[in-house]
Amino acid sequence: MPSLPPLHELPAWAALARHQGECAATTLAALFAADPDRGRRYRFEAAGLLVDLAKTHLTPATLGRLGDLARATGVEAWRDRMFAGEPINESEGRAVLHVALRDRSGRSYRVDGEEVGPRIDAALAQMATLVDEVHGCKRRGAGGRPFENVLHLGIGGSELGPALLVEALAAHHTGGLGLHFVANVDGHALAPRLAALDPATTLVLVASKTFSTEETRKNAETAAAWLRHGGGTVERQMVAITARPDAARAFGLAPDNILPLWDWVGGRTSLWSAVGLPIALAVGTANFRALLAGAARLDEHFRTAPFEFNVPMLLGLLEVWYTDFWGAGAHAVVPYDERLRRLPAYLQQLEMESNGKAARRDGSPVGVATAPIVFGEPGTNGQHAFFQLLHQSERLIPVDVLLVARPDHDLPGHHDALLANGLAQTQALAFGQSDAVTHQALTAAGRSAEDIARLLPQRRFPGNRPATTILLDRLDPASLGALLALYEHKVFVAGAVWGLNSYDQWGVELGKVLARRLAPAFEGDTPPPDLDSSTAGLLAELLARR
Amino acid sequence: MPSLPPLHELPAWAALARHQGECAATTLAALFAADPDRGRRYRFEAAGLLVDLAKTHLTPATLGRLGDLARATGVEAWRDRMFAGEPINESEGRAVLHVALRDRSGRSYRVDGEEVGPRIDAALAQMATLVDEVHGCKRRGAGGRPFENVLHLGIGGSELGPALLVEALAAHHTGGLGLHFVANVDGHALAPRLAALDPATTLVLVASKTFSTEETRKNAETAAAWLRHGGGTVERQMVAITARPDAARAFGLAPDNILPLWDWVGGRTSLWSAVGLPIALAVGTANFRALLAGAARLDEHFRTAPFEFNVPMLLGLLEVWYTDFWGAGAHAVVPYDERLRRLPAYLQQLEMESNGKAARRDGSPVGVATAPIVFGEPGTNGQHAFFQLLHQSERLIPVDVLLVARPDHDLPGHHDALLANGLAQTQALAFGQSDAVTHQALTAAGRSAEDIARLLPQRRFPGNRPATTILLDRLDPASLGALLALYEHKVFVAGAVWGLNSYDQWGVELGKVLARRLAPAFEGDTPPPDLDSSTAGLLAELLARR
Repeated sequence: MPSLPPLHELPAWAALARHQGECAATTLAALFAADPDRGRRYRFEAAGLLVDLAKTHLTPATLGRLGDLARATGVEAWRDRMFAGEPINESEGRAVLHVALRDRSGRSYRVDGEEVGPRIDAALAQMATLVDEVHGCKRRGAGGRPFENVLHLGIGGSELGPALLVEALAAHHTGGLGLHFVANVDGHALAPRLAALDPATTLVLVASKTFSTEETRKNAETAAAWLRHGGGTVERQMVAITARPDAARAFGLAPDNILPLWDWVGGRTSLWSAVGLPIALAVGTANFRALLAGAARLDEHFRTAPFEFNVPMLLGLLEVWYTDFWGAGAHAVVPYDERLRRLPAYLQQLEMESNGKAARRDGSPVGVATAPIVFGEPGTNGQHAFFQLLHQSERLIPVDVLLVARPDHDLPGHHDALLANGLAQTQALAFGQSDAVTHQALTAAGRSAEDIARLLPQRRFPGNRPATTILLDRLDPASLGALLALYEHKVFVAGAVWGLNSYDQWGVELGKVLARRLAPAFEGDTPPPDLDSSTAGLLAELLARR
Repeated sequence: MPSLPPLHELPAWAALARHQGECAATTLAALFAADPDRGRRYRFEAAGLLVDLAKTHLTPATLGRLGDLARATGVEAWRDRMFAGEPINESEGRAVLHVALRDRSGRSYRVDGEEVGPRIDAALAQMATLVDEVHGCKRRGAGGRPFENVLHLGIGGSELGPALLVEALAAHHTGGLGLHFVANVDGHALAPRLAALDPATTLVLVASKTFSTEETRKNAETAAAWLRHGGGTVERQMVAITARPDAARAFGLAPDNILPLWDWVGGRTSLWSAVGLPIALAVGTANFRALLAGAARLDEHFRTAPFEFNVPMLLGLLEVWYTDFWGAGAHAVVPYDERLRRLPAYLQQLEMESNGKAARRDGSPVGVATAPIVFGEPGTNGQHAFFQLLHQSERLIPVDVLLVARPDHDLPGHHDALLANGLAQTQALAFGQSDAVTHQALTAAGRSAEDIARLLPQRRFPGNRPATTILLDRLDPASLGALLALYEHKVFVAGAVWGLNSYDQWGVELGKVLARRLAPAFEGDTPPPDLDSSTAGLLAELLARR
C-alpha cells in the first residue's frame, strides 16, 4: 500500500521551493563576486576525479537545504541498504550489488545470507583464463588459426558500457584483437560486420541475461550459421555471458564457454561483470582489474565521504535541484575527448531507463519531474551544433563538461586548443557577455541605432547557465571506472530522493509484447484483428513495398 | 525597432491555448475510436515519403487553428520570400537559397538580381570532373598511385550532413574509395585516422566557408604536414570547399582544387553544395544528382502543396503545437535503420542551432519555448535505453519513427523483426495498456492485492503519447534527399511561426572568443588577469597535470 508522503508535502521540499525564489534573484556572476574563494570551495575530489561545481548555483544555504531533503528521503539509508545486499529492487525482489563486483578488498557482500565474493572471484578467474588463452593463442579458431577479431552481440546494458570502454581505452589495448559490437536486430548492423570478418578467426560473444533477448538471440543465430558456413564451430568459437547456462548449452555452447551473470546485477550496471569480457579481451585482465579498482575507489568515497564532500551525493541532489526547482528538462553531457563519443548514449540509458518513471516504489505517483533527457556529442563538435540553444534559448540546461588533462597522442597544439575550448564554454555559459560589450562591438561595426536595437537581443549572451566540470588526469582504466561509478551513484541518489526503484524497467515490456503480436503478419499471416487504422495502414504499405 | 506582436496576443495563439484544454480531455485512443478512417485521413505523401500523423493529436479543428496561426505569422509569405532569394537571413543580410542548389529544372533563382544557376552548374561540373578523375584514376596521389581513401576535414554543417549520407548510402557506394571524417580539434579524432591511412594515396578535403574555422584549420595544418612528411603534396592531394579561395591558395592549394561556396548557403544546409563532395566521391555524380533531385521534389511539394496536405508545414506546426501548448521540451528521433545512426546528431544541429533562440528577427523576445531538445538512437537500440522514459515518465515527448520498407542485406528474418518493433512502439506509445490487462497479468502471476496496489502503477502504460511515422521505400539517394529537405522545411516553418531568423547562429560566437583568450595560457603565457576563480583553478590544475 502507498506509504511514501508526497514530495510536495515534505518541509524540506517546500523550503527548497521557497529558496529557489531567492536563488533566482541572483546570478552565478554575483556568487563569484561575493566569494573570491568560490572556485576552491566548490572544487571536489573523488577517487582521483576532480569535480568543479563552482559554476552551478550551489551555496552553503542551498547545500544545507538539499541535505535536509536527502535526510527526509533517506538517501543514505537507501545507499547503506544497497551496499548491504538488501533487495532494493523491490518490484523484482532483487538485490543490487554491482558494487560487490568491483570491491576486491575482501569485504563481505551477502545476498540472502550467501557470500557472493567467491562467485565473483570464480567468474573473474574464468574471464582471466579465457583472455589469457585467446591472447596467448592457446585457444584458437577454425583450422587452429589464432583469433584475430571478437564480435560481441548484446543490446542495451550488454552493449553500451562495453562498447564505450573498448573505444575509450584505445590507448590501453593489448593483445592485438579487433573488437566489434552489434546490438541492433537490424541486419544493416550485423551484415557488414560478417562481411568484413573471417569466420575462422572470429570469437563471438553473446551477452544476454536470459539468453532470450530477441535482438541478441536473432543475431546469435545468424552469427552461428555464419560460423558454421565458414568452417567454424559454435562450440569452439562462441562464448556466452548469461544467467541461463542451460539455454546457452541448448544453443550448442561448450560448458567452459559460458560465463555467469546473477540476478543481483542489473543490465545497466553489468559491464563490471563478465559482460565486460570484451573490455578484458581488448585491454587485458590487469587493465580490467584496474577499471574495477577505480570504480571501487569511488564506491568507497560514496559509502564513507561526509555529505558535504560526497560528490555523487552532490551531483544527484543537483540533478533534483535543477530538474524540479529550476525546470530543467534536459541535461547535456559534453566530453571533450573523441574517445568518449558514446558516453552520452551510455548515460541516456543509465539515467533515462533508471529514473524515467512516474510511480514510486510504493506505487504512489512521484508527482514531480524525474529523469532529464540526457543528450550530447563530443566537444568541440557540439559547439558547432546544439550549443547555440544552450547559450541563447531560454531553456536552462545543465551541462557536464569533461576534460582529460593528458592526451594519448602527440599531434602538437590540438590538445591545448581542445582544453581551451572546453574551459571557455563553461565561462560563456556561466557569465555570458554584458550588453554593453555587445553594444560597443555593434557600434564599432558602424551599425545604426535602429540596427542595434534589433541585433543586440539576437547577439545577447545572458549567461547564468550551470556547468559541472569533471577533470580526469588521463583516460585510463582507473579514471574511467571512477567516472562511470560516479554517474551510477548520482543516478541512484536522484532516484532515491524521488522514491523510485531505479533498478527495474517495466516500461520496456509492452513494446516487446506488441512486436511479437505483429511479427507473424510479416511472414504472411493475417494481421491481428484489432489493429488501429494507422498501424494497419502502415503495415499494409510496408508489405506492399517488399 | 521591434514590430512583431507578442505571440501570446495573437488571436490564433489564444485560440490554440483554449483548444488544447479540450484536446487534453480526450486521448489518441478516443480519436481512433471516433473515426475509423483516421489512419488513412492522416497518412500523407510527399516526394515519395509516406508520413503518418494519425498517432498525433491532430484533428480537423486543430488543423484549422494551426492554419490560422500559420497565416497570422505569415509562414507562407516567408517561404515564398526564401524561394525568391530575398535576404531572409536578416541579421547577416543574406539570402537563403539551398533550394536553388537542388533545383536543376531551369527555374530562375536570383540573389541581388543575379542568376545563381550558372554558378551552381559550374560548381556541379567541377565536382563531377573531380569525382570522375579520382574514380577513373586520372587524378592520382604521390608517386602516381591511385587514391584509395578520402579524408574529409570539416565541422558542424561541413561534417554532419556529409558523414550521415556517406554512411546511409553504403549500399550505393561506387568507385571503391574509403571515406573518413574528422571534425573535432581533439587529436584523438585525427591521430588514429592518420595512423591508419597512407599519405601517398589519400585525398584530403577541407570544408570551411571562411577557411579559418579553427578546428578545421588546425586539422588541415596537421594533415598537410602529414602529407608532406609522407612524400605527398598539398597541391595535388588537398581540395578545399570554401568561399575564401584566396585563403585556400595561400595555404598552398592549386586553383583547380578549390570549389566554391556562397554566402547564401548556410552551414546547416551546405551538404547540397560542394560541401557534399565526399558524398559524390562515395556514391558517384549520378547518385549525388539523384540526392539533389529527391530534395528538389520535396521543395516543390513544400512550395506548392495546399496547406492541408503540405507535410513540412504540418510537421513544423505540430512542433509548435507540442512545444508550446503541450509542454514538450524534447523530440526523439528513432530511425529503425542502423545506417541512419547519425541522423539524430544531424537533426540536433538543424533544429537546435536554427531555432534554439530567444530573440525574434525584430529583436523582440519570443516569449514562448522554441526548439526542443532533439535526441535519439537507432531502433531497436533505443528501446533498450531511453524508451523506458518515453513510455512511463510523465514527460510528453513526441517521437519520430523512421521505417525503411526494403533492406539492402539478405539476412533472413532480421528486417521483419526490425519493422515489427518499430510499428509496435508507435502502438505502445499511442495506446498504452489498460490497467485491467495489467491487473489480470499480476493476478494470474499470483500476486496479492497489496502487491498489486504497489506494482500496478509501476507497470502502467498510460499511452496517449504522439508518434510520427515516416516510411521510406528504400534508403537511396532520392529518398534521403527528400527526407532531409522535409526536416529542413519543418524547422523553417516552426522558426517562421516563432518569428526567428533560423539561419544565423550568434550563440556560437562568445565561446570562440573566450577560447582564443585562454589559449595562450596553455603555451606558457600568463592567464588573463580577470579569470573567475573556477576557471583559474581548473586551468591551474590542467597545467599542473601535464
